[in-house]
Amino acid sequence: MEKAEIIRILEEYARGEIPQDRVVERISAMGLEELGFATIDTDRTKRTGIPEVIYSEGKTPEQVSAIASKMHQREIPILATRATQAVYEAVVEKVPGAIYHKMARAVVYLPVESSLTESYIAVVSAGTSDMPVSEEAAVTAEFLGNRVERIYDVGVAGIHRLFHRLELIRGARVVIVVAGMEGALASVVGGLVDKPVIGVPCSAGYGANFGGVSALLSMLNSCASGVSVVNIDNGFGAACQANLINKLT
Amino acid sequence: MEKAEIIRILEEYARGEIPQDRVVERISAMGLEELGFATIDTDRTKRTGIPEVIYSEGKTPEQVSAIASKMHQREIPILATRATQAVYEAVVEKVPGAIYHKMARAVVYLPVESSLTESYIAVVSAGTSDMPVSEEAAVTAEFLGNRVERIYDVGVAGIHRLFHRLELIRGARVVIVVAGMEGALASVVGGLVDKPVIGVPCSAGYGANFGGVSALLSMLNSCASGVSVVNIDNGFGAACQANLINKLT
Amino acid sequence: MEKAEIIRILEEYARGEIPQDRVVERISAMGLEELGFATIDTDRTKRTGIPEVIYSEGKTPEQVSAIASKMHQREIPILATRATQAVYEAVVEKVPGAIYHKMARAVVYLPVESSLTESYIAVVSAGTSDMPVSEEAAVTAEFLGNRVERIYDVGVAGIHRLFHRLELIRGARVVIVVAGMEGALASVVGGLVDKPVIGVPCSAGYGANFGGVSALLSMLNSCASGVSVVNIDNGFGAACQANLINKLT
Amino acid sequence: MEKAEIIRILEEYARGEIPQDRVVERISAMGLEELGFATIDTDRTKRTGIPEVIYSEGKTPEQVSAIASKMHQREIPILATRATQAVYEAVVEKVPGAIYHKMARAVVYLPVESSLTESYIAVVSAGTSDMPVSEEAAVTAEFLGNRVERIYDVGVAGIHRLFHRLELIRGARVVIVVAGMEGALASVVGGLVDKPVIGVPCSAGYGANFGGVSALLSMLNSCASGVSVVNIDNGFGAACQANLINKLT
Amino acid sequence: MEKAEIIRILEEYARGEIPQDRVVERISAMGLEELGFATIDTDRTKRTGIPEVIYSEGKTPEQVSAIASKMHQREIPILATRATQAVYEAVVEKVPGAIYHKMARAVVYLPVESSLTESYIAVVSAGTSDMPVSEEAAVTAEFLGNRVERIYDVGVAGIHRLFHRLELIRGARVVIVVAGMEGALASVVGGLVDKPVIGVPCSAGYGANFGGVSALLSMLNSCASGVSVVNIDNGFGAACQANLINKLT
Amino acid sequence: MEKAEIIRILEEYARGEIPQDRVVERISAMGLEELGFATIDTDRTKRTGIPEVIYSEGKTPEQVSAIASKMHQREIPILATRATQAVYEAVVEKVPGAIYHKMARAVVYLPVESSLTESYIAVVSAGTSDMPVSEEAAVTAEFLGNRVERIYDVGVAGIHRLFHRLELIRGARVVIVVAGMEGALASVVGGLVDKPVIGVPCSAGYGANFGGVSALLSMLNSCASGVSVVNIDNGFGAACQANLINKLT
Amino acid sequence: MEKAEIIRILEEYARGEIPQDRVVERISAMGLEELGFATIDTDRTKRTGIPEVIYSEGKTPEQVSAIASKMHQREIPILATRATQAVYEAVVEKVPGAIYHKMARAVVYLPVESSLTESYIAVVSAGTSDMPVSEEAAVTAEFLGNRVERIYDVGVAGIHRLFHRLELIRGARVVIVVAGMEGALASVVGGLVDKPVIGVPCSAGYGANFGGVSALLSMLNSCASGVSVVNIDNGFGAACQANLINKLT
Amino acid sequence: MEKAEIIRILEEYARGEIPQDRVVERISAMGLEELGFATIDTDRTKRTGIPEVIYSEGKTPEQVSAIASKMHQREIPILATRATQAVYEAVVEKVPGAIYHKMARAVVYLPVESSLTESYIAVVSAGTSDMPVSEEAAVTAEFLGNRVERIYDVGVAGIHRLFHRLELIRGARVVIVVAGMEGALASVVGGLVDKPVIGVPCSAGYGANFGGVSALLSMLNSCASGVSVVNIDNGFGAACQANLINKLT
Repeated sequence: MEKAEIIRILEEYARGEIPQDRVVERISAMGLEELGFATIDTDRTKRTGIPEVIYSEGKTPEQVSAIASKMHQREIPILATRATQAVYEAVVEKVPGAIYHKMARAVVYLPVESSLTESYIAVVSAGTSDMPVSEEAAVTAEFLGNRVERIYDVGVAGIHRLFHRLELIRGARVVIVVAGMEGALASVVGGLVDKPVIGVPCSAGYGANFGGVSALLSMLNSCASGVSVVNIDNGFGAACQANLINKLT
Repeated sequence: MEKAEIIRILEEYARGEIPQDRVVERISAMGLEELGFATIDTDRTKRTGIPEVIYSEGKTPEQVSAIASKMHQREIPILATRATQAVYEAVVEKVPGAIYHKMARAVVYLPVESSLTESYIAVVSAGTSDMPVSEEAAVTAEFLGNRVERIYDVGVAGIHRLFHRLELIRGARVVIVVAGMEGALASVVGGLVDKPVIGVPCSAGYGANFGGVSALLSMLNSCASGVSVVNIDNGFGAACQANLINKLT
Repeated sequence: MEKAEIIRILEEYARGEIPQDRVVERISAMGLEELGFATIDTDRTKRTGIPEVIYSEGKTPEQVSAIASKMHQREIPILATRATQAVYEAVVEKVPGAIYHKMARAVVYLPVESSLTESYIAVVSAGTSDMPVSEEAAVTAEFLGNRVERIYDVGVAGIHRLFHRLELIRGARVVIVVAGMEGALASVVGGLVDKPVIGVPCSAGYGANFGGVSALLSMLNSCASGVSVVNIDNGFGAACQANLINKLT
Repeated sequence: MEKAEIIRILEEYARGEIPQDRVVERISAMGLEELGFATIDTDRTKRTGIPEVIYSEGKTPEQVSAIASKMHQREIPILATRATQAVYEAVVEKVPGAIYHKMARAVVYLPVESSLTESYIAVVSAGTSDMPVSEEAAVTAEFLGNRVERIYDVGVAGIHRLFHRLELIRGARVVIVVAGMEGALASVVGGLVDKPVIGVPCSAGYGANFGGVSALLSMLNSCASGVSVVNIDNGFGAACQANLINKLT
Repeated sequence: MEKAEIIRILEEYARGEIPQDRVVERISAMGLEELGFATIDTDRTKRTGIPEVIYSEGKTPEQVSAIASKMHQREIPILATRATQAVYEAVVEKVPGAIYHKMARAVVYLPVESSLTESYIAVVSAGTSDMPVSEEAAVTAEFLGNRVERIYDVGVAGIHRLFHRLELIRGARVVIVVAGMEGALASVVGGLVDKPVIGVPCSAGYGANFGGVSALLSMLNSCASGVSVVNIDNGFGAACQANLINKLT
Repeated sequence: MEKAEIIRILEEYARGEIPQDRVVERISAMGLEELGFATIDTDRTKRTGIPEVIYSEGKTPEQVSAIASKMHQREIPILATRATQAVYEAVVEKVPGAIYHKMARAVVYLPVESSLTESYIAVVSAGTSDMPVSEEAAVTAEFLGNRVERIYDVGVAGIHRLFHRLELIRGARVVIVVAGMEGALASVVGGLVDKPVIGVPCSAGYGANFGGVSALLSMLNSCASGVSVVNIDNGFGAACQANLINKLT
Repeated sequence: MEKAEIIRILEEYARGEIPQDRVVERISAMGLEELGFATIDTDRTKRTGIPEVIYSEGKTPEQVSAIASKMHQREIPILATRATQAVYEAVVEKVPGAIYHKMARAVVYLPVESSLTESYIAVVSAGTSDMPVSEEAAVTAEFLGNRVERIYDVGVAGIHRLFHRLELIRGARVVIVVAGMEGALASVVGGLVDKPVIGVPCSAGYGANFGGVSALLSMLNSCASGVSVVNIDNGFGAACQANLINKLT
Repeated sequence: MEKAEIIRILEEYARGEIPQDRVVERISAMGLEELGFATIDTDRTKRTGIPEVIYSEGKTPEQVSAIASKMHQREIPILATRATQAVYEAVVEKVPGAIYHKMARAVVYLPVESSLTESYIAVVSAGTSDMPVSEEAAVTAEFLGNRVERIYDVGVAGIHRLFHRLELIRGARVVIVVAGMEGALASVVGGLVDKPVIGVPCSAGYGANFGGVSALLSMLNSCASGVSVVNIDNGFGAACQANLINKLT
């Protein structure tokens, strides 16, 4: 319950500008706005630093497009993750100008680019099969107004590739490391940079990796001490946290 | 391999100041210093932003105290985590002035306090049984030169307690949430603040929680998008990452 | 073995109304009636408060429709859960008037509405992807003669939505909470109401939730003490128990 | 946010009885009272139907006794679960008249018995090794003001024992079934009664039961439809929910 | 190495009937006969009491039919388990008279029925969704020359159905219990009969049963002491062991 | 409900030898006898072929000795499994002549040896660390009146040891195979004998075997078709089933 | 950082043959060559003894064929594993002469056969369902220039088949054992040969084997001491290590 | 069954030097020698390249010392692993000259050193808490007659330490990598050397690593292709396989 807002309401009430039942209503419903088929959380950006995003998995193309259309009308920037080609086609019909990032499986409609930060987020990945997740992270971070540097295919099986790009990684404000298989890359990077590292374990990759659990455990048990972890394949979540860190003043 | 340093060495070599075998030696051993029973990583702070720390579990009091003594001679700040009373007693004999944080199970010897940041890290915990982990996080963060605000015992079973302290939490630069049982607190906080949230799942708590796996899965699957996670009971790791975030300029 | 019924049989026997072998038969077969391809448990409602229900998963549309048809002839109310469109079409051919609840995946044929209770069951859900499970719970509860109030899409990522509907939830006689991901909603609700709360963990939802195990563990470890749990996605089971509670006199 | 209370405060404010800052304070801190070393949730009973209870595991006898003493001064009924003999001795020194239920591992101090319900809760257990959990359930339920009937040692290895006591079980308003090993008793009872059944899986029992997971999965997958489950060994939690059900009017 | 056969070979050798290299060959290759694309274990029946059986899963219809055809030529009784309709059609073309048990997913060609035992194996199942597994057990047992009594759909949700058929179950020489969900039926039957009980946990059934692990753990932890278990859905394996028991003289 | 007994009771009733309430009582309580602190299942042997046995784990020496003493008075053969030296000493004081099998951790008092079978049970074990489990199986089987042959330390690391004893194993009526580690011995024996094989996976043994889960899974997935399995370390359960098989006529 | 190469560069520098910035570049980028869409690790063979291999799972036929084509131009031997028929067809269009090993799911283009070793690798498999994995191992080993002997279908259910081929297995320099189900074959072979044994657990096979975890645990817990293990179904990895062992001089 | 030995026996038999029953006996008991309380596998070295070793865990000091004493009398080299100080003291009393490697927890009595190989095994470890396992590997390898080079404390948190020692690692004939936590070191080393790498996952280390499962999964999923794995903490097993590889001619 935010005190500043309560004070404002009370003062209006004290001045007799609003009746008592209205005061009760406003205090009990603060920060909420209902919209028929969904309860839109319109001030989520103000509250958490990240706007509402459409997670397309388990939704029909029509449902995604209906939500996107409504956001378009209200001039809210749109990001739909885990979007298939069919989802994109349904959206672009209602939201002309929407762009499809195929590898990232993301639909983006982003009119404002001016908030782009100068500092950058490094997205580092171990191999090419991690790419859908890396790109989900990169595209999400860009959507949220961050500059992103991609450093891909630098896994520890050929570790000299990593060393060659190290300067670029060290220059970032925050580093996202995406890796499947044994996920060793997060620890190696964590031991080489002095910036927060966010690990994203991947389910994709060679052989039987128990759906990404192998990489998840690796990253949780990282011997490097500045590493935290998000859920398997959650490139979106990693980008959200990286965005909050990169925007700190 | 850092280019600046290679250049410096090459220039000395070009000027004939050092012989070829010395160049080879210095290039191949850059950033390394061996010390008999252990290979001390003396420039870890410069490289990763966090100095070497003594993890006391599985070490005898004598071993911890020997390492601490050596660090004391070199005037390196000392933090020994997971330290028993016996460990403390062995250390304080060699390092007069070392302090024991009993609840945090940490021995600290910290001559320099001047680097203390103005911004602060909030350590939020769900209940009293989470306290050894919360305190490990708080003491580690303070040791690394951060200001810390503790907001304890505000779990979701009585969620109004959390709302009462929300302003303090929102004022932090980064938030650590420590919770056992179902770990719901991380999601609830993540949905209420616009700062990065680091979740620490706890093994302690009421009932059968599968050694903390319950809280770990909860936090990894958090519906709030700015939350990342460290390993079970790893208050130390959470503080390390929070420190890196809080020190970003 | 129910004493009242034994007494009745013995008295008939004592009066010579039935021969000894008939007594033996009736005592040994009490409460049982065989029907060719299945042993129908016709007095299950009397015994357990819940009639037999058709679980359609793993049955062909023909099999479901044959069972429904037989129940229709005997004027037993029909509920077929986990029913596809094809199942519905096969059933409605034999049972005109049967209704299909698409979202709940349930076919219902319910002639008697008069037993509807005045008190109500609240079905609270965290998000839209939980809806098939929430609706299975709601439709089942209504089929069993309960009034139901739906409070959907009030997950903890935007917790003020929950507070806005709290009065309605608190007015229920029993509360079903359906949630996937980290399942935190069950604990939060459990800490705010003084009615029994039944948690239903969901397999659907964002990201890698290990088929609902994450939410299941969360709810089992709930820090709120009045919460019990049914199996993953088992909206039907939650409604059955809620029905028994709501019907208590 | 409870509207009735807001109205009351606003009216006092409108009448000028309290200044604005006091209004802000009271609204933002509603239902909260801090007590130095812990944030006591004094109106938890009013909110959730169950008072605060002391979980003794992981606390020293001194800590438990300090909390109990404070509650005693405020004349709050005391229940300390998972209490050792040493805990009891520390408590009884400060709270004369406290009783120790050894088998239930519970310390109770309960001056008011008048709220005792007429209807009863049946606590049914499979074997003698389940007894600490059964007794925790029974003693907790009695502490909360319920009449309890114990039906112990009626597991399915000798199922005729169960049938002999069936009438007593059927007479209850709600049934708690405590069972380890394969936990079959919950399903068997669920198929024989028309009251809500709450299963408590036990870690104790013969052989390798994976710490109670075997019984937990059994109960979650119960073929009887009115069964819900609490966490392994959580007799306390089962009693809390049974209490809420038994007190429904 | 069987002594009787070695003696026989040595005597032939001593009588000069076979040369030394033939002796070496026969001793080192005893009980083995190679057949091009597979090493057929022709005396498996003599050695283990159970002939070779064709497991069709993962084989093409052509492969199954080729093997069956070869066995047909050598007049070996044929059982192909996990067989689809397509497998049956391929087999019957080569082996006229082969019969397809659709529910059991088994193809059988069995010329000799005379070995049928007088004593019988009872196959008891909990519900109709267990039927493919129950029938695999029943058909396998019949194929191996056993009389089988089927007692289906007698799960513990309506336990009186079981009691009604108890005499037939008790008359068996060995009992196979097939059950999914919580698998309670194995314990209940094990507590009521004095014959060996073999449990077969099923993956099929209502709800989330973790692929049969729930029933498997239940049966392994059975409180009845004469119960052993085979792998999930392994009706074939249960019938093999039941056959060995039933054939004991 | 056993018909023969019902007939007997009804005839006494018809002859007026017993009053109606006594008939009701006897029918509803058939096969049950209560004894104060426990419900003794005195006709368990008649019903299941195995008498009640005292499982000592989790009981105090006094409790075990009290039960044993009561059984001694009624001249029931006594077997207490998982018994420590202290348990034995408490028992022998009350039951002179009781014997302690240290390796098997079993206390036995067995006046009747005459029921000893001629056919025998083979207990085959892989190594010496499996011995407590093997001996529990062997001693239990002997207690139940079976002849036992022990074939120990014949694991597959030196498989020729097994072949040397094969004739003795093949002569048994039923074979118990006890093995830890990878549990391969059960499959190897299952492929060499034509008798039922019961596998007992062991938790003891070299290295990290996940508490016996490794051997359990091995035995459940045995490629030999006549193998069934009991729970980890459950030598007692294996002997119970072997006893039922060996006693078949 | 290889000293020999550093010396060479320094000498060129000392002789003034290369400028300083070129020295810096060459030292910092040693052993790396970038190629547009991928960072090819061209000297992987020199560094690790095994060339780059194309893992086809998760790649489109076009992607595999593009990589193969580029390797073909540079005259690098090509191995594409987990390749479907469609992948082969795309590759052979660009690389005429490429061969498809259907059972092994591998595409091979191997101009040089002269490096074939005299010593051989034995690939031993338990059954026919293991064949895709066995063949992946065998084909990979041959591709890497090794002689391979296949000994298939010799699982422990008919262990005499193994003994018959033992001489051939013992003659190998290193043995790969491929087995599903309970994986016992690895232990049995490990106890019979004096060469390194590499176990490959298989996910395929009869019944519920938890995706190969059963065989994996078996092999990790092998009672034979010279056995190591690769991941489930990883015939490729086993062949790589066997190749390194077989090539040791 | 070894043909050469059969031929030898047959020739003696043909020459009439041994009677028929002796031939039968010798053929059926080949390679076996019983010794009262244990079946000693005296030719295990000849058969598998590794002698019998005493695993002390779960044995009393007396038992270990009795076995060691018997081996001493027969002049067999002795290795007792997982030996406590008490075990050592019991052994040295019977076997003067036995040496205790405290860190490796191993007792060794090794009269013959002449078989020492020229090539060496590298034992590489990540940290100091892995040392008991590393030393078990190193001492076992030395006991088996191998030269060993120890490269300890070179984990990836400070990866430059590894590069500094790389030349020594690359010079080995086979490399054992011991690592806990995330086990990344095995992959990093595997990507840098052209010799077989055997990974040993460790249960010891910082934080919650699920008893070594984290490192085990990491190593099984290694992105480097020449890595195989032994069980958690199994330094002994790794040394056995490394010994077989190092002794290959």
